Amino acid sequence: MKKFTAVQDVANVDALVQEALYLKSNPFKYKHFGENKTLGLIFLNPSLRTRLSTQKAAINLGMNVIVMNLDKEGWALETQEGAIMNGSTVEHIKEAAAVMGEYCDIIGIRSFPKLQNREEDYSEELLQQFIDFSKTPIVSLESATRHPLQSLADMLTITENVPAGKKPKVVLSWAPHIKPIPQCVANSFAEWMGQADVELVITHPEGYELAEEFTKGATITTNQQEALEGADFVYVKNWSSYTQYGQVLTAGEGWMLTEEKLQATNSAKVMHCLPVRRNVELSDEILDGPNSLVLAQANNRTYAAQAVLKRMLEAL
Amino acid sequence: MKKFTAVQDVANVDALVQEALYLKSNPFKYKHFGENKTLGLIFLNPSLRTRLSTQKAAINLGMNVIVMNLDKEGWALETQEGAIMNGSTVEHIKEAAAVMGEYCDIIGIRSFPKLQNREEDYSEELLQQFIDFSKTPIVSLESATRHPLQSLADMLTITENVPAGKKPKVVLSWAPHIKPIPQCVANSFAEWMGQADVELVITHPEGYELAEEFTKGATITTNQQEALEGADFVYVKNWSSYTQYGQVLTAGEGWMLTEEKLQATNSAKVMHCLPVRRNVELSDEILDGPNSLVLAQANNRTYAAQAVLKRMLEAL
Amino acid sequence: MKKFTAVQDVANVDALVQEALYLKSNPFKYKHFGENKTLGLIFLNPSLRTRLSTQKAAINLGMNVIVMNLDKEGWALETQEGAIMNGSTVEHIKEAAAVMGEYCDIIGIRSFPKLQNREEDYSEELLQQFIDFSKTPIVSLESATRHPLQSLADMLTITENVPAGKKPKVVLSWAPHIKPIPQCVANSFAEWMGQADVELVITHPEGYELAEEFTKGATITTNQQEALEGADFVYVKNWSSYTQYGQVLTAGEGWMLTEEKLQATNSAKVMHCLPVRRNVELSDEILDGPNSLVLAQANNRTYAAQAVLKRMLEAL
Repeated sequence: MKKFTAVQDVANVDALVQEALYLKSNPFKYKHFGENKTLGLIFLNPSLRTRLSTQKAAINLGMNVIVMNLDKEGWALETQEGAIMNGSTVEHIKEAAAVMGEYCDIIGIRSFPKLQNREEDYSEELLQQFIDFSKTPIVSLESATRHPLQSLADMLTITENVPAGKKPKVVLSWAPHIKPIPQCVANSFAEWMGQADVELVITHPEGYELAEEFTKGATITTNQQEALEGADFVYVKNWSSYTQYGQVLTAGEGWMLTEEKLQATNSAKVMHCLPVRRNVELSDEILDGPNSLVLAQANNRTYAAQAVLKRMLEAL
Repeated sequence: MKKFTAVQDVANVDALVQEALYLKSNPFKYKHFGENKTLGLIFLNPSLRTRLSTQKAAINLGMNVIVMNLDKEGWALETQEGAIMNGSTVEHIKEAAAVMGEYCDIIGIRSFPKLQNREEDYSEELLQQFIDFSKTPIVSLESATRHPLQSLADMLTITENVPAGKKPKVVLSWAPHIKPIPQCVANSFAEWMGQADVELVITHPEGYELAEEFTKGATITTNQQEALEGADFVYVKNWSSYTQYGQVLTAGEGWMLTEEKLQATNSAKVMHCLPVRRNVELSDEILDGPNSLVLAQANNRTYAAQAVLKRMLEAL
Repeated sequence: MKKFTAVQDVANVDALVQEALYLKSNPFKYKHFGENKTLGLIFLNPSLRTRLSTQKAAINLGMNVIVMNLDKEGWALETQEGAIMNGSTVEHIKEAAAVMGEYCDIIGIRSFPKLQNREEDYSEELLQQFIDFSKTPIVSLESATRHPLQSLADMLTITENVPAGKKPKVVLSWAPHIKPIPQCVANSFAEWMGQADVELVITHPEGYELAEEFTKGATITTNQQEALEGADFVYVKNWSSYTQYGQVLTAGEGWMLTEEKLQATNSAKVMHCLPVRRNVELSDEILDGPNSLVLAQANNRTYAAQAVLKRMLEAL
């Protein structure tokens, strides 16, 4: 595997899921794989789970890890071709990516969208430039439009909890939030579920339609109650508007998932990528109750990353 | 050992001191102990000695170490049960601690008191919540009211320097400072000395009485000169007022320890946990002279941490 | 080797260059050398290449690495002898350096000049105090007046690219920049080239003369075109004025290196230590063309550092 930025980069999704679950049972079996190999983790935005789990995954494979917080260190990157760099950017991504590619065998990079200009964000320019200029395998640690390691971890978690002998109904349910949030987790989850043997329903208030390229094959409804009926999994997540780009269109009253709403489901397991705003997106009773899978998802982040890194090490 | 937050967590203080001194002579003997084990170090406040020495202790035991500076990364934690999280906190400690507990085998955490509300600080809510929610052994790297790794290192240092055949006189002497400083180092030192075979005298200006739970068995006086008479060790430290909580009550003129004051002692060794304000808390002549143990104390931080981590690894 | 702060610290420059090139071909051959040894990297200023390459060099030698960003963590160091520390500095360098020396077997330190007071910057007080107080081998990761690891990497790069059978002409060519930049890279490059079998020409606008102690043996001219004639290597670099200390004296119109200017050279290879301001210091066409060595220089940073660390490990 030369890059991991979207489900399209995975030749066989099911095989990757199975490998990740195998690694979960045998985390240190491939500790020699990463010997003398260096993973560089570049964060242009803060990270808790992603940083810890990816670092742990690399360590489990015997790799060295070097973390760089580019946001914190005033190292503003220029991305414009042909720029006359007499302003605030201190280094062009051409050099920065190429140099990091020289020091690292694999690079992971996190960069959030600015949520100001949809075309710009959805072009994934920074991620693409890192792929082009670093000449090194690149793992997305969340980009402007996708969060593939999260989605792979979500897929592991669903695989581990799917009711026997049934094609599960999976509902992606929009939730309120006080701030404009990227669409990447929702985009990515929809895209990965499109590759899985599930029935996917997406529910959100009007105006929160995701880009069609991600939701192919899903049923989409603005009626949350209808969506929840008979659900086996409910994935709760806020995102800002794609059509009125980056806007918060509604306070979302009534959209928080509660125990009462869960009554309509098939004792659905509840998922969230974290961090979660308690009693805004999801009620305490659900998060503290037996149906919550949020910690299992976070735990599976390690094995999702480990499977991806192992594939990349194999292809070096 | 499941937690290390106070001397009360140690079944046999003397045995732990002896183990730490053994590890000082044989730092790499147990390098296999920590194989494939991860120590997570969480700093909500800055750290120099604690971070370096604890990292070194873990490396000596073969552990992997992941450091998280939560203060720097805008990851404000919610600690209130039942909070509706529509404000500035981005994640509840329930999730943050649980997730870190999934990625780490042992967690170290540093968090200073705010020095605004005594009841709040002395409840040690954050530390307690990490213990409750992480489900992982917790090492305090300094909490609101105690600094047990420092105290254990201090105990090693006293053990190494105790005059032969004598129960030493140990004086904890308040010193001036320009800022309000927590009581934790003083609390902790008093508490640990209460478990040692020493005569403990605490001296400070009026209004700087420590909480009684920490000073049991100690002689307390506001007469510094009397306290210093015949002392074998003088531990110099500033703290803000406990009774008028968090206040600086006096500039402390005359309380700085000087060579002249040391004349009254039994050639006392002088201790300080560092960082020290030179010529405010302690004079240059003492810090640069033969009686200073401050560097020996700092060095012993490594072996204090290593003994504690070894005990925790044994109990995993 | 007990310290590496300038070319004068190297007994045999050519042997060190050869060792670095050997390590480049055999990066993991000495992985046992650094076992149980700790390298502490202290940054009082930001770093990308230096941090990554030095960390990688240490890992290649099997060392543990602990990174401290002292600039970010509000740990302001006092450097004045006899200071009464009742101000903003929290720890004296005497203690800070000594404590870090206790935890680390080798210390690397980066500290930029303030460019306000020439005498102060050129005294290299901070670096010298770390050498004095840490009692540990010190590697300069760039100091107020020199950047020796960069210069050693530059020397490797020239050695790898020197035209056969010819004493190469090396030109250090001043370039425009929008900010006042230290003289350290230029000083250091001139000083190291003074030890090499090359013809060194330095060209810059009037008022940008470097201190003579660094430029001994070089031809110095304000005529860039003349300097470039027949050059085999052109090292492009901005620096602020040494004589009118820290000042930007000119916008430097006409001093940017372009493809057209390269015509006068002997198909010169172009060098820069990075980060580079594209189309201000150097044109895109050169940086993206076949004559650029800037990525090769960055890559050689790893092996420069590895050779230095290996020598220090041998001398422990």
